Amino acid sequence: MLDKEDVTVLILAAKKKLGLKWEEIAEKIGMSPVFTHSACMGMNAFPLAKAEELVAVLGLPAEAAEVLAESPNKVFDYTVPTDPCIYRFYEIVGVYGPTLKALIHEKFGDGIMSAIDFDMSVTRVPSPKGDRVKVEMSGKYLQYNAW
Amino acid sequence: MLDKEDVTVLILAAKKKLGLKWEEIAEKIGMSPVFTHSACMGMNAFPLAKAEELVAVLGLPAEAAEVLAESPNKVFDYTVPTDPCIYRFYEIVGVYGPTLKALIHEKFGDGIMSAIDFDMSVTRVPSPKGDRVKVEMSGKYLQYNAW
Amino acid sequence: MLDKEDVTVLILAAKKKLGLKWEEIAEKIGMSPVFTHSACMGMNAFPLAKAEELVAVLGLPAEAAEVLAESPNKVFDYTVPTDPCIYRFYEIVGVYGPTLKALIHEKFGDGIMSAIDFDMSVTRVPSPKGDRVKVEMSGKYLQYNAW
Amino acid sequence: MLDKEDVTVLILAAKKKLGLKWEEIAEKIGMSPVFTHSACMGMNAFPLAKAEELVAVLGLPAEAAEVLAESPNKVFDYTVPTDPCIYRFYEIVGVYGPTLKALIHEKFGDGIMSAIDFDMSVTRVPSPKGDRVKVEMSGKYLQYNAW
Amino acid sequence: MLDKEDVTVLILAAKKKLGLKWEEIAEKIGMSPVFTHSACMGMNAFPLAKAEELVAVLGLPAEAAEVLAESPNKVFDYTVPTDPCIYRFYEIVGVYGPTLKALIHEKFGDGIMSAIDFDMSVTRVPSPKGDRVKVEMSGKYLQYNAW
Amino acid sequence: MLDKEDVTVLILAAKKKLGLKWEEIAEKIGMSPVFTHSACMGMNAFPLAKAEELVAVLGLPAEAAEVLAESPNKVFDYTVPTDPCIYRFYEIVGVYGPTLKALIHEKFGDGIMSAIDFDMSVTRVPSPKGDRVKVEMSGKYLQYNAW
Amino acid sequence: MLDKEDVTVLILAAKKKLGLKWEEIAEKIGMSPVFTHSACMGMNAFPLAKAEELVAVLGLPAEAAEVLAESPNKVFDYTVPTDPCIYRFYEIVGVYGPTLKALIHEKFGDGIMSAIDFDMSVTRVPSPKGDRVKVEMSGKYLQYNAW
Amino acid sequence: MLDKEDVTVLILAAKKKLGLKWEEIAEKIGMSPVFTHSACMGMNAFPLAKAEELVAVLGLPAEAAEVLAESPNKVFDYTVPTDPCIYRFYEIVGVYGPTLKALIHEKFGDGIMSAIDFDMSVTRVPSPKGDRVKVEMSGKYLQYNAW
Amino acid sequence: MLDKEDVTVLILAAKKKLGLKWEEIAEKIGMSPVFTHSACMGMNAFPLAKAEELVAVLGLPAEAAEVLAESPNKVFDYTVPTDPCIYRFYEIVGVYGPTLKALIHEKFGDGIMSAIDFDMSVTRVPSPKGDRVKVEMSGKYLQYNAW
Amino acid sequence: MLDKEDVTVLILAAKKKLGLKWEEIAEKIGMSPVFTHSACMGMNAFPLAKAEELVAVLGLPAEAAEVLAESPNKVFDYTVPTDPCIYRFYEIVGVYGPTLKALIHEKFGDGIMSAIDFDMSVTRVPSPKGDRVKVEMSGKYLQYNAW
Repeated sequence: MLDKEDVTVLILAAKKKLGLKWEEIAEKIGMSPVFTHSACMGMNAFPLAKAEELVAVLGLPAEAAEVLAESPNKVFDYTVPTDPCIYRFYEIVGVYGPTLKALIHEKFGDGIMSAIDFDMSVTRVPSPKGDRVKVEMSGKYLQYNAW
Repeated sequence: MLDKEDVTVLILAAKKKLGLKWEEIAEKIGMSPVFTHSACMGMNAFPLAKAEELVAVLGLPAEAAEVLAESPNKVFDYTVPTDPCIYRFYEIVGVYGPTLKALIHEKFGDGIMSAIDFDMSVTRVPSPKGDRVKVEMSGKYLQYNAW
Repeated sequence: MLDKEDVTVLILAAKKKLGLKWEEIAEKIGMSPVFTHSACMGMNAFPLAKAEELVAVLGLPAEAAEVLAESPNKVFDYTVPTDPCIYRFYEIVGVYGPTLKALIHEKFGDGIMSAIDFDMSVTRVPSPKGDRVKVEMSGKYLQYNAW
Repeated sequence: MLDKEDVTVLILAAKKKLGLKWEEIAEKIGMSPVFTHSACMGMNAFPLAKAEELVAVLGLPAEAAEVLAESPNKVFDYTVPTDPCIYRFYEIVGVYGPTLKALIHEKFGDGIMSAIDFDMSVTRVPSPKGDRVKVEMSGKYLQYNAW
Repeated sequence: MLDKEDVTVLILAAKKKLGLKWEEIAEKIGMSPVFTHSACMGMNAFPLAKAEELVAVLGLPAEAAEVLAESPNKVFDYTVPTDPCIYRFYEIVGVYGPTLKALIHEKFGDGIMSAIDFDMSVTRVPSPKGDRVKVEMSGKYLQYNAW
Repeated sequence: MLDKEDVTVLILAAKKKLGLKWEEIAEKIGMSPVFTHSACMGMNAFPLAKAEELVAVLGLPAEAAEVLAESPNKVFDYTVPTDPCIYRFYEIVGVYGPTLKALIHEKFGDGIMSAIDFDMSVTRVPSPKGDRVKVEMSGKYLQYNAW
Repeated sequence: MLDKEDVTVLILAAKKKLGLKWEEIAEKIGMSPVFTHSACMGMNAFPLAKAEELVAVLGLPAEAAEVLAESPNKVFDYTVPTDPCIYRFYEIVGVYGPTLKALIHEKFGDGIMSAIDFDMSVTRVPSPKGDRVKVEMSGKYLQYNAW
Repeated sequence: MLDKEDVTVLILAAKKKLGLKWEEIAEKIGMSPVFTHSACMGMNAFPLAKAEELVAVLGLPAEAAEVLAESPNKVFDYTVPTDPCIYRFYEIVGVYGPTLKALIHEKFGDGIMSAIDFDMSVTRVPSPKGDRVKVEMSGKYLQYNAW
Repeated sequence: MLDKEDVTVLILAAKKKLGLKWEEIAEKIGMSPVFTHSACMGMNAFPLAKAEELVAVLGLPAEAAEVLAESPNKVFDYTVPTDPCIYRFYEIVGVYGPTLKALIHEKFGDGIMSAIDFDMSVTRVPSPKGDRVKVEMSGKYLQYNAW
Repeated sequence: MLDKEDVTVLILAAKKKLGLKWEEIAEKIGMSPVFTHSACMGMNAFPLAKAEELVAVLGLPAEAAEVLAESPNKVFDYTVPTDPCIYRFYEIVGVYGPTLKALIHEKFGDGIMSAIDFDMSVTRVPSPKGDRVKVEMSGKYLQYNAW
């Protein structure tokens, strides 16, 4: 019985063998690269139809589709990530967290940005002083209930 | 002798008395709202000219300008922030951190997004199913050195 | 300039002097006891009209109303609460957390219960073998986005 | 010799093979879905008769019944759960813990809600603005002893 | 307005001035030494009549009685106590915790010893090889509910 | 070469096969149930003669006796135990630790209760309002040295 | 009412004013330098007669003697000390802890070195390759009880 | 390819089979028991000649000598050791750390005791009131550099 | 499919068999010893051409080259390293961290030293009072952006 | 009675008033900038003559000299520093710690770089692609003792 970790291993092997990039895989199944990667890593659930397309694209065993469509258990290391590429985002949340909160309150009211009804993209922006990484996040505004 | 914490208190009092929003303060001094708020909170250093403009706009004591232009000591609580509005960003980094890393490597090579040569904005995006919070970050790509 | 902690102190003193229970205060302003207590403790924001009613009921200074209506910074001790009455709820989340997740997924799909669009009540249920505490929570179901 | 972890694996496989939901399994053995799931996960002990019914319903090996009826060792990760669906409950305890305590004291006296003589349910409540997750907990009130 | 910490300070000063031991104070108000000390430290609530007796015995201000009868907030340092006299009890729980659990299960069934409906005493037991500290705890057995 | 963990596994299997309780095993080798259980779990060392009796009673391999008589390495999870039955004892130490210390100092002087020259028992005390768990600990008083 | 922290401050001021070393103070009251320093820091209790001698030697207020003779609350930072001079001892315990345990077991049996019936000294040992710090500790051997 | 953990296992088996004590092994190779034990546990590196003698004494495979002479990676559990025999030394460092620092500064100047150019011994000291464990440590004094 | 951990094991075995030092390996492939070691440990990515040279020098399987050129996941133990040789560097950062920050700000402005566009070397400096370890680090200065 | 924290405050005020840089202060007293800053921050002890020069240069009260020459208590936050400028050095130790250890062992033998007999400098190195921060550390090699 395959679980999400097994399927991740199968996906990585197939991706290497086929010489595909995440962006190419995402395009073939009509999903975004961010969602595709995180669902392949077992941190999101594919809609079943998309899971079946992925299985076809990568030549995975048929039963992998159902596994890819299951609700995942999102476990990550609490506290501090050490990889510099990930740590920098943690640092940004630490430094700018209160600013994000203040501006959301100013623009919307007493509430938060949803991390569930949420999407994100990563793009490369050319620049003469060195290209830049652009990360865009968008989440539904959720108002605190008063009852 | 004023320090950054004292100046933050003075700014918050002046902002309340003048009935200004962060966006309005930012516009008056020609800086972005994200940078303006974080520098007012003592997490960034204003260029001296901008600090002097801020002092004029908010009617702060003259010596505050120099304090606002000093390099800050960026101290934040390590581990897990508890306010839900901030926690959701921490959660996004936990869930999507490895995805950000994978896509940056795929698009740029072996490196990271700088959190120093960095900018960010927050905007409100109208949507029929409920308005959305949009957060855009951009940082210079830094390639690991091999020597 | 009053802050939320100052107003909490004023509320507790007025409550003691007037001999009011949280339930009575809540009823007078037409809000639930859970929300009323948590907003008086500075963990939620009252709608401004309700804040003004509370100021009238408890004889607080007028400027307290605006403070009670500000977005709070929800700071609580991460890790483990020690008071036995609070710890038992933490223990319930530890023991039954995976069960809540499994049943939410079974009944709704891949998503969560919102802690923002949320309400809660506490009631006393008489029982011959010893009265029982009943806690009811209700939060909007939020479906994970796939994009 | 089977242990609780082995039996959990057997249950999950049988559940998948038989295409049963937790609610259906619970109904077949006349227990609640919350208790049934948590006992199947090894976090509660089934009464022996119920364990034997479960073994029959799912076609488990006979010796599994005794294992399901043993007192479990309730081990969960201390500190902060990361899965968003579980974290939101942890957040609720953090934000509303002091409120639950204050209202229990007001309604009952100096004591706590038991997490041992305890039951819980999860239901789906239809709502035009989006269905809601309703969680009901009930625990016996325990008065502190003074001696 | 006195709080529990203030009253503890007043009690310690009165106890020193009057030259009383905890055992003597406990005897004068007809409570046990363990409960008396912990309630004087603000970790338990005296029944109001006992609080008033204590106020009379120690010559405390009248309003202290009500404070001593309030439900306390039992905050203690999580993790590891450092004072050797307290640490040894923590160590005993670490070493013998699974043993206490196994024997309670063997003698009673699937349940726990209550820490709420609970009492404790400390006595000195003479012994030729060196006197011994005897600590006796007793708590109501609470059976896990199956529902 | 057997180690303490191996022997614990053998003991648990033999105990189950023979249908013995810890109390019965303890009685057969003339030791207390608390010590017997904790030494079988590898947290204490049996005197060699007792270890040999245990080997005979449970039909263990002969080399197990020497292992059971070795000094153990007492490793337990620092910080907070999660199982409710064990946690309640941790909570008692948190709430009553300073009280135990104060009363030991009052009755004995500046010192502690030994956790090494130590014994403990668990008994069931019938009570009309529900039977009670009684835990008795006794440790030699150790006086701090002044030199 | 003086407490131990107040007395420590008075001692440090008197020591500086009188130009005395810890060794000289210790010699004047007939105690060891290690015990004298730690009791002056509030980590040990002087015998009352010694406390009175110390009060006389340093010209402290008379009531300080009783404070110095009270049982202290030994609070120290759990986890890792940062001062290099103290950290090195922590490191020694980390590296050689299992060795100390193995050799104590080999020489004495199943037991420990007491940290209560304990003494320690620090001496300077001249050496041509650089003088050495010599630390000697001695504690009573305590045998684990088997009961 | 043997590593230090493998060699430790081989040493423990050979020691048991040959019925040797650490003191006897140490004597046979002309090293101290403390160093011998810690190097056998992989926490120190034997000089190669000594490693070869040990290999001969215990009948280890020849390649073990080189492994025993490699620089070890000294990994130990940070924070708090739980075994009582080791914990007591941790407690001593907690209680007496500032005293050790004060006396080293008084006797030597601004510096520390080296934990690298370091030796230690454990001896049994007979005493009518119960034998005592004596631990002696000596480390080179290192003066802080001022530049 | 080889991963970075597998390749590290192969490298260590080949290095031992060939009797090469890290400095010699580094020289053969024309990279620095610091970079070579850290990339062999899987903490940096070799340029592909260098990876292929390393494969040739050490006789590794051909597919190892690609693995050595992959972006690594830089995972290290957060908090405190215990090995004394590594801990001393951690201690230096703790003691001198604010000094490094102050001097960088004084010499450059409001910014940091990059740990990405970074190089480092270790050399042995002969000295009559004992040879010294010299560590040189150099990183590009990165100025905080103000926007 | 001044302590090190008081003197640090006086130094910072004098430095600001006199418009001096750390490098200029260091030069005036003939010490390095790194040592001067860290000793002014209370993390190192000045030789008394240098302390007196500093008092003269900055116009501090005479008694400050003695305080500056006292052995400091080097307390820093264990775990992870959050300021990006300091964090990067922590990250370097995390990523390159094992490499530093391996190369020190290869060049010197089984030992460490002293953090006590230690010096450090920070310089600005012009570069066409952006100036670089150069940090040089040098510490005496200390060989582990084998005894």
